[in-house]
Amino acid sequence: MLLHGYFRSSAAWRVRIALALKSVRPETRIHNLRTGEHLDEAYRAVNPQALVPALELDDGTVLTQSLAIIGWLDRSYPEPPLLPENTVLRAQVEAFALAIACDIHPLQNLKVLKRLRAAGWSEDEVAGWIRTAIADGFAACEALLPDSAAPFCFGAAPGLADLCLVPQIGSARRFGLDLTPFPRLVAIDAACAGLPAFISARPDRQPDAI
Amino acid sequence: MLLHGYFRSSAAWRVRIALALKSVRPETRIHNLRTGEHLDEAYRAVNPQALVPALELDDGTVLTQSLAIIGWLDRSYPEPPLLPENTVLRAQVEAFALAIACDIHPLQNLKVLKRLRAAGWSEDEVAGWIRTAIADGFAACEALLPDSAAPFCFGAAPGLADLCLVPQIGSARRFGLDLTPFPRLVAIDAACAGLPAFISARPDRQPDAI
Repeated sequence: MLLHGYFRSSAAWRVRIALALKSVRPETRIHNLRTGEHLDEAYRAVNPQALVPALELDDGTVLTQSLAIIGWLDRSYPEPPLLPENTVLRAQVEAFALAIACDIHPLQNLKVLKRLRAAGWSEDEVAGWIRTAIADGFAACEALLPDSAAPFCFGAAPGLADLCLVPQIGSARRFGLDLTPFPRLVAIDAACAGLPAFISARPDRQPDAI
Repeated sequence: MLLHGYFRSSAAWRVRIALALKSVRPETRIHNLRTGEHLDEAYRAVNPQALVPALELDDGTVLTQSLAIIGWLDRSYPEPPLLPENTVLRAQVEAFALAIACDIHPLQNLKVLKRLRAAGWSEDEVAGWIRTAIADGFAACEALLPDSAAPFCFGAAPGLADLCLVPQIGSARRFGLDLTPFPRLVAIDAACAGLPAFISARPDRQPDAI
């Protein structure tokens, strides 16, 4: 099994946490998104979207899109579960994850920021765009948490919601967003920060970290 | 069961197709996104993200995010299945759906377009932004299709991938994208267009269509 990634990619970070929670340790191949290594033909043959992460299985099958990879992982390695069995609760956890994966993250990925810069936006304007996208999304995420959330998003064990939240909080901090309005998200992030799976998946623990 | 929607919302359109394929017919409530009806306090109490769709179950539980709602629907009403049982194939179908739901649709939703207009972009510039986002995503979608795709994305029956694709094609046409480079996607859209579930879910068949 081979994970294609990049230390700073939020989506790859999610998958690293999921793999670590499952104690699955694939080989890894790094594609530097800053220098455009992911855009070469060789990687496009692996993932036509030229995005990370992608997970190559031992039979050569390639899985793409972080949430689809994590779903496959959860079905293939059931313990510990990343999603609840209860069908309504499962949909609520997925909604929290999608609120990050669809409504925050795509607005601040590198391709979008490049388009804004190409349109003449200053770095301050780009940073403002990012902070607004994250703040809007985090306000919704706070409201989507169940009243009982503790210490993790949906209870006593970390799962899909947490492994989407933590990289997004990391990104928010990198772009200087004030997290004071989101105390529950910050508390969950702190709870995750002490767990070995979350520690080993951190960008600064990756071999390509700069 | 009550579906909160808007005729032109791609995400609500996906859910309408899924409900129709399952022969589930909830009541509907319309929130005009153009006039900002979705932003009022009453709807925020239903869905803190103030997005459509949201599905209220009979016990008052609210499900949000189209893909999470569709997942719940597929588990609660198994026939016909919207996702394959095979765990790898399932991840590939989900990846195709996420390539649309995460990597295309969020870049062209109303909130983002409003921000670009507020930054002084002309309508031509906004339309160019949209067309680039869809064209980039569709190129990837064509490549993510299995060689065997016919007449639907992943075989002989429509499913999650198709019900994400059709509204995105509708949006592409609305914004004047040339679809010539995407012949397989166009052929799948045409195959879906003849099915009752896809016909009844079309925006122009909704009571709020203008």
